Amino acid sequence: MEIGIIGLGKMGGNMAERLRRGGHTVVGYDQGPQSSRDVSSLGELVERLSGPRVVWVMVPAGDPTRATVRDLADLLSEGDVVIDGGNSRYTDDLVHAELLGAKGIGYVDAGVSGGVWGLENGYALMVGGDKDDVAKVQPIFDTLKPEGEAGFVHAGPVGAGHFSKMVHNGIEYGMMQAYAEGYELLAASDVVQDVPGVIKSWTQGTVIRSWLLDLLVRALDEDPELADITGYVEDSGEGRWTVEEAINHRVATPVIAASLFARFVSRQDDSPAMKAVAALRNQFGGHAVKSIAKGEAEAPA
Amino acid sequence: MEIGIIGLGKMGGNMAERLRRGGHTVVGYDQGPQSSRDVSSLGELVERLSGPRVVWVMVPAGDPTRATVRDLADLLSEGDVVIDGGNSRYTDDLVHAELLGAKGIGYVDAGVSGGVWGLENGYALMVGGDKDDVAKVQPIFDTLKPEGEAGFVHAGPVGAGHFSKMVHNGIEYGMMQAYAEGYELLAASDVVQDVPGVIKSWTQGTVIRSWLLDLLVRALDEDPELADITGYVEDSGEGRWTVEEAINHRVATPVIAASLFARFVSRQDDSPAMKAVAALRNQFGGHAVKSIAKGEAEAPA
Repeated sequence: MEIGIIGLGKMGGNMAERLRRGGHTVVGYDQGPQSSRDVSSLGELVERLSGPRVVWVMVPAGDPTRATVRDLADLLSEGDVVIDGGNSRYTDDLVHAELLGAKGIGYVDAGVSGGVWGLENGYALMVGGDKDDVAKVQPIFDTLKPEGEAGFVHAGPVGAGHFSKMVHNGIEYGMMQAYAEGYELLAASDVVQDVPGVIKSWTQGTVIRSWLLDLLVRALDEDPELADITGYVEDSGEGRWTVEEAINHRVATPVIAASLFARFVSRQDDSPAMKAVAALRNQFGGHAVKSIAKGEAEAPA
Repeated sequence: MEIGIIGLGKMGGNMAERLRRGGHTVVGYDQGPQSSRDVSSLGELVERLSGPRVVWVMVPAGDPTRATVRDLADLLSEGDVVIDGGNSRYTDDLVHAELLGAKGIGYVDAGVSGGVWGLENGYALMVGGDKDDVAKVQPIFDTLKPEGEAGFVHAGPVGAGHFSKMVHNGIEYGMMQAYAEGYELLAASDVVQDVPGVIKSWTQGTVIRSWLLDLLVRALDEDPELADITGYVEDSGEGRWTVEEAINHRVATPVIAASLFARFVSRQDDSPAMKAVAALRNQFGGHAVKSIAKGEAEAPA
């Protein structure tokens, strides 16, 4: 079928390519002057598509997505469908569905997983929206998804796709941190001599084998002691939202929260909290502190 | 080759079967009068094997394994090799290697993963010991391990196998808890309608696909709301040892520790800690407590 894609970055560009390979007609637009874009404005994109139109929004979550959806609300017509395939928070979906719905434009939210591997392996899709809107876009989903039975779910009404993707990413944080803690403990051991070998051995026959573990093996193949990278870890939103929604829904998520907080700590040059602990130990017990001026402890603390 | 196996339970019995299918000669012994045992005493087992003997110990960790190794130290001869394939703590390995080593008997510790699936899929093996001792037993490892390059590692000297297996299980605790928290948050959501469908969809193309996730899908296929089981979770030692070794090695493992503690909480009928929090809220703020006698709160707390 015919589809407009807004946003031709690493994700949007590869998805356009996978759709073209699957026989669909793609009209691509990107705000930047990308050579791969087919049109140079949103208006032109909408003109080039025959109705009822299907437009996939694949721009950064937050303001860029919100602005794009508002523009589309002005440009599109009744019966068209907008899909937000970005990493939007599910609460944005409710606003977007109402805005577009007022003009008879359908809205579908699609959580997408697969990263740079998606072009070849397919993109896992978690979708929210009205049954009729989802049905209109199903051929697109069928081409994007991986082969096999799994890799696609219509999770519920608008918002359910991004909610599911948010939880997916929260779980991802916890899994990554679990592997990471195990890695550090192995590396600290005085008996284990072949840490990359142990981790590689886990990829077959064990309870903890996974795709993330395969990626850790790849990383250790390239750099067996991870000597070339620092332990500085960004986070991109979904981990925070997962913990915020855990609070909103009164669900205890100690592991996901601890994983998120570990990333915050990883980005600090020094920790005000641990300065406070050091200061308090000094206050009540006279324990040595490591002073900024001297650069080392006066006594074992 | 020829091997004696002590302990013919779910693990040992299936491993004996996999070894026989692989062309090895197995002499099995179990303390209980199991019909599958080939001999009725440890002494008989040792007599039946031609030297240099290889004996695989697959009995519960702790005292049963320690007693068996002590008995073998009396019965075996120089040049024989004992493998502890149970879930022993790695500190026991150091004791056992010394005890047996004094008589010229080799000792290899083997962490084994694979559970009830191992008979068909193979058992992942993490091995510690002297190079020569491991080499003597390699044909056994080659038959037990899964097909393919991975699934076996000689991780280091004695203790390295069980240390690696301990860390494997600690990671397993964290991963299980991460999936579990995501599951509970999905189930608490007001937009996601098909929780089992979402989790099933994750098994292809996503970042969090794994064997554990496949098992969660199986569980939800059988019981979509897990209505037939309670949230009571035992732990079997390795999770505790992982956290203890994290402390011994001064490695922060917040996620693995939180996973372990969540299991402790899951086994309580009521929590003394949370009684204390409720009592303190009542003391300083007059907040209502849920009393045992009345069974319900007097006011929203």
